[in-house]
Amino acid sequence: MRNLITDVPGLLVGNAQDERAATGVTVAVFDATVAASAVTPGGAPGDRGVTLLEPEMTRGGIDAVVLSGGSVYGLDAAGGVTAVLARQGKGMQFGGLIVPVAVQAILFDLMNGGEKDWLRQPVDKPPPYWNLGRDATLAVGESFALGTAGAGFGATTAMLKGGLGSASAVTLHGFIVGALVAVNAVGSAIIGDGPHFWAGAYERGSEFGGLGWPARVPEAALALRFKGQPKQATATTIGLVATDAALSKAECKRLAIMANDGLSKALRPVHAPTDGDTVFAAATGTAGPGGDPPILTELGTVAADCLARAVARGVYEATALACNNLFPDWRTRFGVGR
Amino acid sequence: MRNLITDVPGLLVGNAQDERAATGVTVAVFDATVAASAVTPGGAPGDRGVTLLEPEMTRGGIDAVVLSGGSVYGLDAAGGVTAVLARQGKGMQFGGLIVPVAVQAILFDLMNGGEKDWLRQPVDKPPPYWNLGRDATLAVGESFALGTAGAGFGATTAMLKGGLGSASAVTLHGFIVGALVAVNAVGSAIIGDGPHFWAGAYERGSEFGGLGWPARVPEAALALRFKGQPKQATATTIGLVATDAALSKAECKRLAIMANDGLSKALRPVHAPTDGDTVFAAATGTAGPGGDPPILTELGTVAADCLARAVARGVYEATALACNNLFPDWRTRFGVGR
Repeated sequence: MRNLITDVPGLLVGNAQDERAATGVTVAVFDATVAASAVTPGGAPGDRGVTLLEPEMTRGGIDAVVLSGGSVYGLDAAGGVTAVLARQGKGMQFGGLIVPVAVQAILFDLMNGGEKDWLRQPVDKPPPYWNLGRDATLAVGESFALGTAGAGFGATTAMLKGGLGSASAVTLHGFIVGALVAVNAVGSAIIGDGPHFWAGAYERGSEFGGLGWPARVPEAALALRFKGQPKQATATTIGLVATDAALSKAECKRLAIMANDGLSKALRPVHAPTDGDTVFAAATGTAGPGGDPPILTELGTVAADCLARAVARGVYEATALACNNLFPDWRTRFGVGR
Repeated sequence: MRNLITDVPGLLVGNAQDERAATGVTVAVFDATVAASAVTPGGAPGDRGVTLLEPEMTRGGIDAVVLSGGSVYGLDAAGGVTAVLARQGKGMQFGGLIVPVAVQAILFDLMNGGEKDWLRQPVDKPPPYWNLGRDATLAVGESFALGTAGAGFGATTAMLKGGLGSASAVTLHGFIVGALVAVNAVGSAIIGDGPHFWAGAYERGSEFGGLGWPARVPEAALALRFKGQPKQATATTIGLVATDAALSKAECKRLAIMANDGLSKALRPVHAPTDGDTVFAAATGTAGPGGDPPILTELGTVAADCLARAVARGVYEATALACNNLFPDWRTRFGVGR
């Protein structure tokens, strides 16, 4: 086990980033079309293809989940992903055609200090996201970078640099569950001024520093810390949980609803009006049926824990951006080495 | 009055098409950011940015609605639209940045006989939709072509060539309402073998032939006619209704729900599992409040009528594709000249 979402068999992840623009794309590509659904608890979402994931919709499966920076401009990324998938022959075969389905959510990192050249010449110099989506898909593998990487490259939180996180676990029934998340929350992943993480209770080993929870949370630490100023308004946490259990689309929706509880446990505040928080859930199905309520209860609980852990790992693994000193990284801020 | 959606002040429409690929894009651009919402009654939708239009979401307004061919590949179109809007300074001003919101729905015209070169080389020769979105936005005006044009260029219905339609009306309270639709339905817009349109009752003048309804519909005409074969599976009807009334996002959702009744009246079958039917509703707000229930009832009823008429006009105005003789156009089929 790598403690990555790629511990779920049949799923690879790739990153691509534009370091000068301080933004990037992360894609999870499935070996075969899988059942999936999503929830959108954030107040300001941006997405592509998500309506199709509602249980009453016909199409059963997806081929990739795309997480991207760039706000509305970033929604081009799924186009580049789709192009590579089509060339690779991935997707629904339909009358001799290939129709890959790459669903996407974006986060807002337009004001993080990176050089967003396309904002000056958006027509003659198009946004980089179609190409970043293409490159992330060409880069997929079992290993991938966390922290300041992919969709988490330009991400920030209320107090610290944000980033890309991942985690995995095995349920009592033997199903593998993994989470992938780009943490760019309005809120904070740390308690008060830190260094403890809200997700501390769920930590495995020392995957995000091994500090656990403080015995007591002082009242001052409950004072709200969030990005309230326009110049800080780089918001949204977007993620994916996956399992090797076999689930219907409706059961994937239930898994997404429960997995989202992981964001509730790991970030404060979360699901704010200016967050576009979106959680996808996908089931590769190779390990047998997981939809019975007790089994799905376990899958959902473990998925929530994994997503909470992934949030903390995304912040823990991050490195501050050279172009923005407002958001130090956790290790520098708390004097812990790598 | 032009009997087009552009009779609503503050709204322009542009088309762009790739004739060889037999596909295209239609965009409605608003002078200023407007309230909007949407419904997705079809079973296989493809869209971009639509989750944001739910009433519980924060962002109040949009700058453009994009209708496109190309299925999942077509979802790049909103990127080209967004780029032009950004260059023109349209969109929410946010910390010195421009964030235009272009929402989109697609229809499936991949198997209509056009040369979809990008399906052979999707990475090296990207799909044309980003550029078509850009070009449609650069082409907006008060007048625009109907029938085999824009998003309706490659569209078909169960019996006949489909196309792009539009219509407008004034309510008793003096509000202007308009509809725009790309008709690519699984079902049929004509009763039985025709030539009458299901929408015949709502016709104004002779806007789609002036034939009205048949006095009696023979039982045989109720036999289902729909695209059931994969080779015919070019489905989905997508549209927009707009008004100059001032409506909240929640009231726009209500307007979209009622406007969708126009599809119910104009197409049989409709909202099928392989249709991705999506109806947007937008309120420019220049003519005063329209949200009181009796006024909104009138707006919704007139919007439904306009959308039904627009469907019939889209089919009536269409010209058959040279690359596909399976779908004759209405005028040729019924021997009526132009």
